[in-house]
Amino acid sequence: MTSPSHLPPSEAGLLSPGRTGSPAAGATGDAAFLAALLDAEAALTRAQASLGLVPPEAAAAVTGAAVPDRFDLLSLARRAAAGGNPVIPLVADLTAAVGAEHGPYVHRGATSQDVMDTATMLVAARTLDLVLADLERTEAALARLAAAHRDTPMPGRTLTQHAVPTTFGLKAAGWRSLVLDARDRLRAVRGALPVQLGGAAGTLAAFGAYGADDPLPLVAAFARELGLAEPPLPWHTLRTPVADLAAALAFTTGALGKMAADVLTLARTEIAELAEASGGGSSAMPHKANPVRSTLIAAAARRAPQLAATLFGSMVAEDERPAGAWHAEWEPLRDLLRAAGSAAGQAAELTEGLRVDAAAMRAHLGVTHGLIVSERLSAVLAPVLGRARAKELLTAAARRAYAEGLPLLEALRQEPEMPELKDVDLESLTDPADYTGSAAALTDRALERR
Amino acid sequence: MTSPSHLPPSEAGLLSPGRTGSPAAGATGDAAFLAALLDAEAALTRAQASLGLVPPEAAAAVTGAAVPDRFDLLSLARRAAAGGNPVIPLVADLTAAVGAEHGPYVHRGATSQDVMDTATMLVAARTLDLVLADLERTEAALARLAAAHRDTPMPGRTLTQHAVPTTFGLKAAGWRSLVLDARDRLRAVRGALPVQLGGAAGTLAAFGAYGADDPLPLVAAFARELGLAEPPLPWHTLRTPVADLAAALAFTTGALGKMAADVLTLARTEIAELAEASGGGSSAMPHKANPVRSTLIAAAARRAPQLAATLFGSMVAEDERPAGAWHAEWEPLRDLLRAAGSAAGQAAELTEGLRVDAAAMRAHLGVTHGLIVSERLSAVLAPVLGRARAKELLTAAARRAYAEGLPLLEALRQEPEMPELKDVDLESLTDPADYTGSAAALTDRALERR
Amino acid sequence: MTSPSHLPPSEAGLLSPGRTGSPAAGATGDAAFLAALLDAEAALTRAQASLGLVPPEAAAAVTGAAVPDRFDLLSLARRAAAGGNPVIPLVADLTAAVGAEHGPYVHRGATSQDVMDTATMLVAARTLDLVLADLERTEAALARLAAAHRDTPMPGRTLTQHAVPTTFGLKAAGWRSLVLDARDRLRAVRGALPVQLGGAAGTLAAFGAYGADDPLPLVAAFARELGLAEPPLPWHTLRTPVADLAAALAFTTGALGKMAADVLTLARTEIAELAEASGGGSSAMPHKANPVRSTLIAAAARRAPQLAATLFGSMVAEDERPAGAWHAEWEPLRDLLRAAGSAAGQAAELTEGLRVDAAAMRAHLGVTHGLIVSERLSAVLAPVLGRARAKELLTAAARRAYAEGLPLLEALRQEPEMPELKDVDLESLTDPADYTGSAAALTDRALERR
Amino acid sequence: MTSPSHLPPSEAGLLSPGRTGSPAAGATGDAAFLAALLDAEAALTRAQASLGLVPPEAAAAVTGAAVPDRFDLLSLARRAAAGGNPVIPLVADLTAAVGAEHGPYVHRGATSQDVMDTATMLVAARTLDLVLADLERTEAALARLAAAHRDTPMPGRTLTQHAVPTTFGLKAAGWRSLVLDARDRLRAVRGALPVQLGGAAGTLAAFGAYGADDPLPLVAAFARELGLAEPPLPWHTLRTPVADLAAALAFTTGALGKMAADVLTLARTEIAELAEASGGGSSAMPHKANPVRSTLIAAAARRAPQLAATLFGSMVAEDERPAGAWHAEWEPLRDLLRAAGSAAGQAAELTEGLRVDAAAMRAHLGVTHGLIVSERLSAVLAPVLGRARAKELLTAAARRAYAEGLPLLEALRQEPEMPELKDVDLESLTDPADYTGSAAALTDRALERR
Repeated sequence: MTSPSHLPPSEAGLLSPGRTGSPAAGATGDAAFLAALLDAEAALTRAQASLGLVPPEAAAAVTGAAVPDRFDLLSLARRAAAGGNPVIPLVADLTAAVGAEHGPYVHRGATSQDVMDTATMLVAARTLDLVLADLERTEAALARLAAAHRDTPMPGRTLTQHAVPTTFGLKAAGWRSLVLDARDRLRAVRGALPVQLGGAAGTLAAFGAYGADDPLPLVAAFARELGLAEPPLPWHTLRTPVADLAAALAFTTGALGKMAADVLTLARTEIAELAEASGGGSSAMPHKANPVRSTLIAAAARRAPQLAATLFGSMVAEDERPAGAWHAEWEPLRDLLRAAGSAAGQAAELTEGLRVDAAAMRAHLGVTHGLIVSERLSAVLAPVLGRARAKELLTAAARRAYAEGLPLLEALRQEPEMPELKDVDLESLTDPADYTGSAAALTDRALERR
Repeated sequence: MTSPSHLPPSEAGLLSPGRTGSPAAGATGDAAFLAALLDAEAALTRAQASLGLVPPEAAAAVTGAAVPDRFDLLSLARRAAAGGNPVIPLVADLTAAVGAEHGPYVHRGATSQDVMDTATMLVAARTLDLVLADLERTEAALARLAAAHRDTPMPGRTLTQHAVPTTFGLKAAGWRSLVLDARDRLRAVRGALPVQLGGAAGTLAAFGAYGADDPLPLVAAFARELGLAEPPLPWHTLRTPVADLAAALAFTTGALGKMAADVLTLARTEIAELAEASGGGSSAMPHKANPVRSTLIAAAARRAPQLAATLFGSMVAEDERPAGAWHAEWEPLRDLLRAAGSAAGQAAELTEGLRVDAAAMRAHLGVTHGLIVSERLSAVLAPVLGRARAKELLTAAARRAYAEGLPLLEALRQEPEMPELKDVDLESLTDPADYTGSAAALTDRALERR
Repeated sequence: MTSPSHLPPSEAGLLSPGRTGSPAAGATGDAAFLAALLDAEAALTRAQASLGLVPPEAAAAVTGAAVPDRFDLLSLARRAAAGGNPVIPLVADLTAAVGAEHGPYVHRGATSQDVMDTATMLVAARTLDLVLADLERTEAALARLAAAHRDTPMPGRTLTQHAVPTTFGLKAAGWRSLVLDARDRLRAVRGALPVQLGGAAGTLAAFGAYGADDPLPLVAAFARELGLAEPPLPWHTLRTPVADLAAALAFTTGALGKMAADVLTLARTEIAELAEASGGGSSAMPHKANPVRSTLIAAAARRAPQLAATLFGSMVAEDERPAGAWHAEWEPLRDLLRAAGSAAGQAAELTEGLRVDAAAMRAHLGVTHGLIVSERLSAVLAPVLGRARAKELLTAAARRAYAEGLPLLEALRQEPEMPELKDVDLESLTDPADYTGSAAALTDRALERR
Repeated sequence: MTSPSHLPPSEAGLLSPGRTGSPAAGATGDAAFLAALLDAEAALTRAQASLGLVPPEAAAAVTGAAVPDRFDLLSLARRAAAGGNPVIPLVADLTAAVGAEHGPYVHRGATSQDVMDTATMLVAARTLDLVLADLERTEAALARLAAAHRDTPMPGRTLTQHAVPTTFGLKAAGWRSLVLDARDRLRAVRGALPVQLGGAAGTLAAFGAYGADDPLPLVAAFARELGLAEPPLPWHTLRTPVADLAAALAFTTGALGKMAADVLTLARTEIAELAEASGGGSSAMPHKANPVRSTLIAAAARRAPQLAATLFGSMVAEDERPAGAWHAEWEPLRDLLRAAGSAAGQAAELTEGLRVDAAAMRAHLGVTHGLIVSERLSAVLAPVLGRARAKELLTAAARRAYAEGLPLLEALRQEPEMPELKDVDLESLTDPADYTGSAAALTDRALERR
């Protein structure tokens, strides 16, 4: 199998700073697609040779000729316009490269879509492996963060407002659980990526015309050659593999987007509980440390859902090969692989370098002067004082705490004394760090997942 | 558990003829959501009672009061605006309904999102069961069609043009394989739908404040009460269940959309190989039999991908409860359940009544005067005549067949005699019905899947 | 024209708290669509009467019978399934209501799509008027805010970090300019909303068969009856009006979404520069004042783009009436009207009640200890000290300010004295409130736009 | 202004056969963006020189250095990752290229977004000019087709079924009207494309710090230098220009997609009323002439709505520069320019070469044995025979025509004679070519539009 790793990216990537730095960039360029198309053609001939359908010399010749460097990408791209896909000119060039003797065995019995779809699955497989590796790094970094901050209290925020305390450990464990969900979905899809082989209309008829008594084993042999799965049916217009990729990649990008959204919020100048290892600089404003990695993940997460939508839409593929739905898949699928790949690469860097300011987190627990534990006080005082009096007390104290900037504990103590409260440990009850509920237990349980 | 089936749909459905007829309609109306919200509230109190956290009488009282008919949907909807969700007014009304003694046990320790998300999962579970039943009908009908037409030849079409023959059996088997893929994805998601329980910021802290030593078992008890799964973590902003629903529902709608696209093509006046059992009539044009079911499936399939995109986008949910991302899920998720439900209902009707005109299929194999088997002739004649002569012969015969409207067999016979061909059975080689490749074998294999 | 305002909403709106409170809700319900469908039917008969094509008594009879209350919405919705649209059963019921004599003049010569599209344009027109009124309120409130805070300095934030100062006046003026852009786009679309009239395949042939020498004037008469525009061609599959609505409504929702995003950020507990007039409460947490209106606008803005995408996608409408593309428009267009209507209604409330904490804004200018004006110091000191020395000085002072929490002015003064700086007014140079550039001038200019 | 036309495309385009052949390809490549970025930088310095803010020599030096060939695209792309955009490294390289004396005047006072947005508008402007030229060709070709086939009757088709006759002239006129609508929208957007200039947070403050008494005239001067519009406000987070581009480009692609959908239908093997000038060939199936151009337009039209959705979504851009929303625009906007450019290029070729088979169209009018005019017969016979008898007669005749494959005229004549019909010219009434209504008049009127 030709490795695409040494190939230059086919596009500079001026508009995609998130992608350019990611391992997925090289794996999805035009050069990588060319390599995969050639891999598919060579594997098809070898598979036919393995079943005695073509001479072994032909298989060797095609494999030897299927070297990306010998093909002119730009010329192929231009000639692709006439027939609407790049396989037609590629087969012509490969046939010429193989020479008159073995030429007839190039692409024999296949249709363009067999090769294009198979190459796309190869590109997807190679890219997913890279994405999975970056998710592995991300997951490990998040496990470390969650364990280290298992007991680091911070404000829980809902609808932008402080609600009740939580911990940064639980937050990191939550991010990690999404990363593991993404990993599981990508792995399942990765393992099922199939070759495509059906011939002109998916009946494998041409392989019979060329001599195969039963063409079905050829599909299995083709799959073996490429390390991809054998599909139950030709899937020219049964686009399960593409839809599954769409779902898993959109999921992955969204999962990382959740983390990025949190980092962006918590890195705000006024909050500054988190910071990226090395913020993006600004020539004009030396103090700025922009959360660039989170920004680029967020950008990918804004695009992925709509790319997936186009791919889901292409399931509606009429006939035995559709006029448009198939062609509309190519670029969005690549873009989606790149979006997920970019996000995963940035996430690995982000999480490995994330700086956590536990002191800031703790300090912010006091921003509402203790009101962040009002839920707890309601719950505990109601049975002691009765619901109505408890509410009255809390409302009065809260109003004063808020208005005068007093800690809630002080405000409570300034209210008229209530004998029922003499055994109540108000100090501990109003300590936000003491009101993190099951955060630690949930974190522990979440970290058990591998 | 309150059954929503007897409840009136909350919306007439004037703009959704596809949905109005589907079982999924009632299961997703406002009334069904109200029932699910009440089911969730009652189950939460019962779960707390099962762990000794609230009096059993309270659980009985809440369960007894949680009857949809006693609540005013319109009033709830209006009062939902103030706090941004319908749970806040519902809890107020339910608390009032339960009375002073048990009121404090309503919604105790929970946050609105706990109840809203749980209710949404209940609605999803109930709807998916209906969708799965319709897919079952569809799958069975398609299995019958595929078996019955295992050997019914028809033109395979690619990019709108006749390519090589295929069979209607293989086409129906392909549709069925997509339906089974959809079923598998929906079943997996259905089985994993979790309850939501985390309290104000997902730490379960309030349950502790109300007396639970360890709130984690409460989540399991809540899940047991409702027959939903226990989530590993509160998922207020870890939206895996919603994203998985989005993917599976968009997949389902797209899978059915592929079938609808084929039926719409094959039901065209000029093609008429397929017809719906009872086409939609037209008062002005009595001859018209519109393929209405396919049309409504196609319409659903055009909408589903973008609805799923919105849901994937809502994975980017900042903090412990997001300001907008969560709220943006409710209607698209309902719409997507309805789109899939509508498509599945229509698909069951469509496939159970589909009329297949095998004679028309066979007749159309002749529309290209035999050119539909030119691929085969190329493959078979090349070794006999040599590539160049074979191509020359075929090109000449094809041109004449096309120009003069001759069957290709006639055209070939009018070419100068070639002695090498005397043992070649041109009649059989040019019979399209004899060139369906592995269509039957593939159909058989596909039908083995259950 | 029947006013739909008194009609009950056809759906409670449990899942749409943003919409339920908006004027656009009633205008887009099933009842409003029914009213519009009847308005269209009646207007068509009147238009034919105005040209002498049907008896004036028939027009009066149809108009008299076309009263929404006399029709059964639920029954219509159910019977819509057979033919795929609600016009078919409505025409049957209206014909019956009109009686044998005038029945033949109901819907005469028209196709279902003529009436459905016309009704949709009526609903759109009526809803846009409400949306425009809410934008008017919003624009006026923002003009007041911009004028009042023309000189209120606050941190300008880029990529979540403080950049350089700006003013709240400029920010409000920017929001207003988007609202005016939305208004202009909606107005243009509103004025161009056309009736639909083409008959079965858009040739107006049936009107001729029923006696019109030249059916073209009938289109103009129909438009006059309804106060809509006359289209240049029947647009059954030329969907310019729908695509234009999609664009203008997605624009409007996005424009308001920008404002909501800013309010949500600036209302965060740690920032609190803005607050909604009455935040959504939380029973469990009495201190919480959730920015509910911004949240609901943000939710609408997350949905609108994908709804618009479905409508743009429906431009691809084959033949003289498409099988699916048209049907896929109805619900998304309604949802988009509702999303924009909800957002506009919330925005009017939001802006009219927005609370601005100018003191907090000013205080935050100091969060970076003056680094927020480092850009200015670079610009001013470079010519005085030379680029290199200026940079050296600023870097050192910034580092110290940041590390020791010193104001930048102090830090600069603690650096070794530089004689070149003796005439430089460092105090004023480091005052963030003095570095708002053209903010005031831009605000003034923007406010001139009406 | 540097022309990008001689620059090589930065990406081969292996996956985009539709684009590779289009004029828009070169105009949107990385090289074209680099050229536009340099144009923006140079224009900014010149604009400052024109107001006496920088020395004229500096403007000349920057302009002289801003030559794309001297910059390393790949290096710029890689270094863009650190700060999240390509302007930061570009400014570094341009400053170095200009030399120490003039270096300080490069990018002076500007922020990266000023240059990036301005360059994007330049790329958009240049691409729209090419798209408009292709629309011009398309419109002219369609005008010729509409005029030539003003009276060519063909079946009007609704929901895939023959409805009543129409003409190909009216169909072509309809396509043309969509093209003109697209042209009008693109022109309006093209004329309004603005420069971006606001400095770090949109207040223009740095320009003041560098010496401008009033920076506002600088915006106008910058716009003059580039031939773009002067914006009323800096639009860093007021994304009207991008949203307007999204709408106009999605409209254009959808408008052409409608035409492509019709051609794809009418080019089907069984219908063959239309054919592309030179269909894409198939090596395996010599008879195939695939409608490749329509296919590629259809593919573009499937992608454009979701690309536009992402851009509409980016209107929700928080603060003075958003962390993600801006970055998420770059690639979708380019893709959308390419989709529209590709579709327009293909449409010009398609329409200039479209082959119309008027004989096939006329022949198909008979496929339903005359039932295609049943609407007319109903209308004409009802007043003669009474509604009930007319319907009875038609139903009986239609049934026989359909069942026996008789022309409707024959079937009518075989019904028992009705004296009322003796003056009715059944022959003319049942001639589909005589029932095209106002098709010709509508075509004439539509062609008057320029």
